[in-house]
Amino acid sequence: MSTPQATDAQKQYLQALLDKGLLFETGVDGLYGRSEVFERVVQKFDALVSKYGGKDGAEVLRFPPAIARKSFEQSEYLKSFPQLAGTIHSFMGNEKDHQALLAHVEKGEDWMGGQKPTDVVMTPAACYPTYPLMAKRGPFPKDGRLLDVQSYCFRHEPSLDPARMQLFRMREYIRMGSPEQVMAFREQWLERGKQLMGSLGVPLNIDVANDPFFGRAGKMLAVNQRDQGLKFELLIPITSVEKPTACLSFNYHQDHFGLLWPLRTHDGKVAHTACVGFGLERVALALFKHHGLDVSAWPAPVKKELEL
Amino acid sequence: MSTPQATDAQKQYLQALLDKGLLFETGVDGLYGRSEVFERVVQKFDALVSKYGGKDGAEVLRFPPAIARKSFEQSEYLKSFPQLAGTIHSFMGNEKDHQALLAHVEKGEDWMGGQKPTDVVMTPAACYPTYPLMAKRGPFPKDGRLLDVQSYCFRHEPSLDPARMQLFRMREYIRMGSPEQVMAFREQWLERGKQLMGSLGVPLNIDVANDPFFGRAGKMLAVNQRDQGLKFELLIPITSVEKPTACLSFNYHQDHFGLLWPLRTHDGKVAHTACVGFGLERVALALFKHHGLDVSAWPAPVKKELEL
Repeated sequence: MSTPQATDAQKQYLQALLDKGLLFETGVDGLYGRSEVFERVVQKFDALVSKYGGKDGAEVLRFPPAIARKSFEQSEYLKSFPQLAGTIHSFMGNEKDHQALLAHVEKGEDWMGGQKPTDVVMTPAACYPTYPLMAKRGPFPKDGRLLDVQSYCFRHEPSLDPARMQLFRMREYIRMGSPEQVMAFREQWLERGKQLMGSLGVPLNIDVANDPFFGRAGKMLAVNQRDQGLKFELLIPITSVEKPTACLSFNYHQDHFGLLWPLRTHDGKVAHTACVGFGLERVALALFKHHGLDVSAWPAPVKKELEL
Repeated sequence: MSTPQATDAQKQYLQALLDKGLLFETGVDGLYGRSEVFERVVQKFDALVSKYGGKDGAEVLRFPPAIARKSFEQSEYLKSFPQLAGTIHSFMGNEKDHQALLAHVEKGEDWMGGQKPTDVVMTPAACYPTYPLMAKRGPFPKDGRLLDVQSYCFRHEPSLDPARMQLFRMREYIRMGSPEQVMAFREQWLERGKQLMGSLGVPLNIDVANDPFFGRAGKMLAVNQRDQGLKFELLIPITSVEKPTACLSFNYHQDHFGLLWPLRTHDGKVAHTACVGFGLERVALALFKHHGLDVSAWPAPVKKELEL
């Protein structure tokens, strides 16, 4: 389950973005600085998402890019995607240990031996911090919960494909409630997602999808997820027409998270959950690909829609 | 050099913020969710900083909350603050290793044994990604460099003091150039900082300061830093009048970073650098403390200044 090798088209697009000064290299594949222009496109798209979703009365929550280790363990993320997670470790030694650490650094040796796990883990998806928080609040009101989050997420998959960053932002709306409430939410966003991205003049289609589950057992989970139609993606060709890039995803978790935490509806039933996620960097990359690297030359209707 | 124990006043303020629903607990001290209102105050203050600093023509750069491990090693952060750094580790094993990992999680045992260091480290201060980037661009133009950054930063110092978060946002302007250019920048921002924070109706004073250097050798570094007046802080009483909280800091690094990377002025000299940093969460906490937890009841001039 290693990260797929980047294609020539992906490497070329990355180089074009670097040459244009929209992204900046850090020396690590998948870790980039963003220019003011790149950032403005991300912010404006984020604001456009709010225009579509803001009327529904979602509770706006913002979390830092890490979650409690205990919540992370409880989430069962490690069962499905151990290879993508990032745990944060710190030095907890004394002055002698510090001298040893510095000597290793000085000699270019491995100095990580003394790093110990902290209580925090990188956020794997923007919705993860919400489940324990909503569980703590007790049974839902009658109309369930609707949440709005955005944060940097980490996935350890170094790649030269600019659409596969190790740190990227995900905007999400999350619905928690009865199966009917949750399915209605997903239907609504499948429609809205098409409308929203269509208004930005990019080719798209929606298809059933699966998560990158780890290992052989993961292959079965992936097949099962597709068979049940639990995950859909809104795909936009960025560097390949045959293999377009998932820019939005529409996920029905059934009672997975409801059972884990636990989450309960107003009448004490196990809650179902769903989310729609927007890959903010991926959307920006799609816009730059289709409308050009010079934002001022983008089609007027697109600039108007994004208030650019 | 462990994190100082939180005072009763600090714990009480944290509890008030949680009770009011401005911050949300995650189960880890120093790691909190933010409400829409808290976030709006942070965003509006960030925008106010841009109003003061935006006219100077700084290059706006935005980085994810982690930097390349190689750059981190080169920064010598480990010499001074090993206890605060956060390295990111990932699982890189096979299916058998995965089974063992899951068995550990299942039994509530330590499952971190197989986590291996990745090439990324949490950003310790918002300016860190800029030094290697500017070094790569070669000698500066005649008027040096002026940069504008903002990112989440990590410091491993779990605490019940809400002003000591493990993950918080830092906005910075960074100046690189001749000693004269850099000192003029710091003087300008010492004045601007006072004016900016004064306009928000909070009591403040500016004082010489030092960084929390590790160990006994660190004590000498701290004394030296104070003696040379390299670091000033803009302090606002949040939970204590006697020990006010550093909300802005004004740092003159002399040629420290210029030598490390190396950074060179237009005429080939080792560049000096300085930065002004705004602790966005700390400023928000100061505003909530002095004007109350209900933003709508804040003094009209403060709301006007922040466009709240």
